[in-house]
Amino acid sequence: MQIFSNVEFSAQGQQLLARDVAPDAVHFGDPEQFGAADHAALLRSEVAFGSCPAEVLEQAAGLRWLQLDSVGCDPYLRLDWPRLSTRLTVTNLRGFFSVPVAETGIAGVLALIRAIDRLIELRQVREWRAVDLRSRLRTLHGARALVVGYGGIGHALASRLAAFGSHVETYGTPASGAGLTTLAELDGALPRADIAFLALPGTPATAGLFGASRLSLLKQTAILVNLGRGGLVDEDALVQLLDQGRLAGAVIDVTQTEPLAADSPLWSTPNVILTQHTAGGSSAEIDGKTDVFLVNLKRYRMGLPLDSVVDWAKGY
Amino acid sequence: MQIFSNVEFSAQGQQLLARDVAPDAVHFGDPEQFGAADHAALLRSEVAFGSCPAEVLEQAAGLRWLQLDSVGCDPYLRLDWPRLSTRLTVTNLRGFFSVPVAETGIAGVLALIRAIDRLIELRQVREWRAVDLRSRLRTLHGARALVVGYGGIGHALASRLAAFGSHVETYGTPASGAGLTTLAELDGALPRADIAFLALPGTPATAGLFGASRLSLLKQTAILVNLGRGGLVDEDALVQLLDQGRLAGAVIDVTQTEPLAADSPLWSTPNVILTQHTAGGSSAEIDGKTDVFLVNLKRYRMGLPLDSVVDWAKGY
Repeated sequence: MQIFSNVEFSAQGQQLLARDVAPDAVHFGDPEQFGAADHAALLRSEVAFGSCPAEVLEQAAGLRWLQLDSVGCDPYLRLDWPRLSTRLTVTNLRGFFSVPVAETGIAGVLALIRAIDRLIELRQVREWRAVDLRSRLRTLHGARALVVGYGGIGHALASRLAAFGSHVETYGTPASGAGLTTLAELDGALPRADIAFLALPGTPATAGLFGASRLSLLKQTAILVNLGRGGLVDEDALVQLLDQGRLAGAVIDVTQTEPLAADSPLWSTPNVILTQHTAGGSSAEIDGKTDVFLVNLKRYRMGLPLDSVVDWAKGY
Repeated sequence: MQIFSNVEFSAQGQQLLARDVAPDAVHFGDPEQFGAADHAALLRSEVAFGSCPAEVLEQAAGLRWLQLDSVGCDPYLRLDWPRLSTRLTVTNLRGFFSVPVAETGIAGVLALIRAIDRLIELRQVREWRAVDLRSRLRTLHGARALVVGYGGIGHALASRLAAFGSHVETYGTPASGAGLTTLAELDGALPRADIAFLALPGTPATAGLFGASRLSLLKQTAILVNLGRGGLVDEDALVQLLDQGRLAGAVIDVTQTEPLAADSPLWSTPNVILTQHTAGGSSAEIDGKTDVFLVNLKRYRMGLPLDSVVDWAKGY
C-alpha cells in the first residue's frame, strides 16, 4: 500500500508510522508547495494525508482515502462527489481545532473588553492610564453571547462562556441541539447580542451570510468574532461599520484572502484583533494531527468505518 | 447624621442617597485628592464612604463606620485596631471586584499563550506570521493552574479555569476550602504549575511571599499572574527571571509603586502584560460601589450587622 503525506510528521510520528507500514511505502511531500514529485506520488497512492489541488483528486484513480489535515473542505466542494465518492472517502479533522479556536476567540474578546490591546500599546509608550481605562472595561459576566454555528467550536465556546456568566444563545442546524435554528430566529437574536461568535463552516449556504444588512442588525456596542471562514462575512461592510463606530470591535481569525493583502484595511481598522488564522494552532498540533491519521489508518487497514467522514451533501 | 463620601456617585446614586438622608447631610469630596475641606468634613461625620489618610481615622472621634471603596485595607493596617475598633467599624468591597479581576487575569494569560500580544504588534507593522506563530501557541486546556489565595478572586478564577479544562490546584487558609493550606504544600505545587495566579491580600504575612527563591521554584515555561498586591512579589527578582528567559511570562496588575515609575523595567521586560491596576474595573463599577454603600447604609440605619466587616486580626 502506497501512502502519500504532505503533513509535517514529528520524529515520533514517523516511527509510529514505520511500525505499521514499510517506510518506503510512504512519500513525504512539501507541506508548503504541491510539486511535480508530489503529484506523481499521489497518483500511485491508495491513501493520502494532507491536501492537494482539487483536480488532482479526480486524476488519482487509485486513491481510496484522503485524510485532510483541516476541518474545512471548501476547496473540494466543486468536485463531482456523487461520482467521486463511490471510490474515494474523505475524512477531516472534525473537532480537532475546537478547543484552541475557542480559546483564541475568547482571548480576542477579552483583549477588547478588558482593554489588553490598549494596555499593550500603552506599555510601548510607557504611559499609565489606569483611571481613564477602568470605567470603560466590560465583562463577559452578564454579557449576551450569540454563538452562530453549533459544532465543535460552538460547543467549546458555549461551555466556557457559561462559566464566565454570559447569557449564551446558539444558532445551528436542528440536529446540532442549538436553540435557534432558522435565519429568522438568528436575525431576531443579533440585535440583542453583545458578542456574536461566527463558527460556521464554509459552504455555499454560508457564503456571504453576514453581508451588510445582517451585520447592521448588530448593535453599536457589539463585538463580532469570526472563527469560521473569511467568506462568511462581507469584509468591506464590516470595515465600514467599525470605521464609523457602528460596531464596537471585531476579532478576525479568518479573512477572504490569506495571507491578508498588504493594503487590506483590516491592518488598521480600529478595534480589530487580527489573529491571522492562528486560532487552531497549538504546540500539540503536529503530534495531534499525526495521531488522528494513525488511528484512522489502523481503522482503514482493519476495514473499520473511518472517523470524521466528510458528508459532501452537507459540505462538511 | 453627617455622611462623608469621596467616592464618585452616579446621578442615580445621588438621588437614591437623597431619598434616604437629607442632601445637606452629605459632604462630597474629591476622589483624587483629600484636602482640608475633606478633612474637616470627615471629623464631623458619623459615616464615611471612600478612603482617607490613615491618621485621620484616629482623629475622627465621631466616626462610627467607614465603608471602603476597595477590598484592600493595607494602608490602615498600622493603626491601633484593638483600641480603634471599639468605636469604628470598617467594611470593604469584599467580592465586588472578583469577577472583573478574574476576567483580566484570564485575559492576560490568554493574550500570552494565544500570542494576542504578538499579533497586536504584528498588525502595527502589517506582517503576516501565521505559520511561525501557530506551533508556539499553548492552551488553558490541559494546563496546570495554581491559584494562590482562595477568596473571591481565587474562586472566580478556579471555576473559569475548570471550564477551560485546566487542572486547578488552590492554596489558601484552611477555612477557605483550598486544597493546599501550608507553605510547604505551596512550594511543592509551584514547580508543577504552568500558570500561577496570585490573589492574596496585602498583609504582613503575605508581604514579600514571592521573593527570589520562591519565584525560582516556577519552571521556565511557567507564567506568573499577580492580581493581589504589588508587595507580594519581589519585582527585581521577577524582572531578572523574565529577562533571563527563566520564566515564560507574567501578567502584572499590581506593582509596588503605582503609577509605575517611568524608569521601571516592567515597561520593557519581555513577555509582560501590564494591566495598570485596571483588573477590578468595569463600566458597572461606579453604580456598583454606590449600591454596596447604600445597601450597607440601610443596614446601619436599621441597626443590622454590616456586610463585609474587615477583621483586623487577619488584616482583610
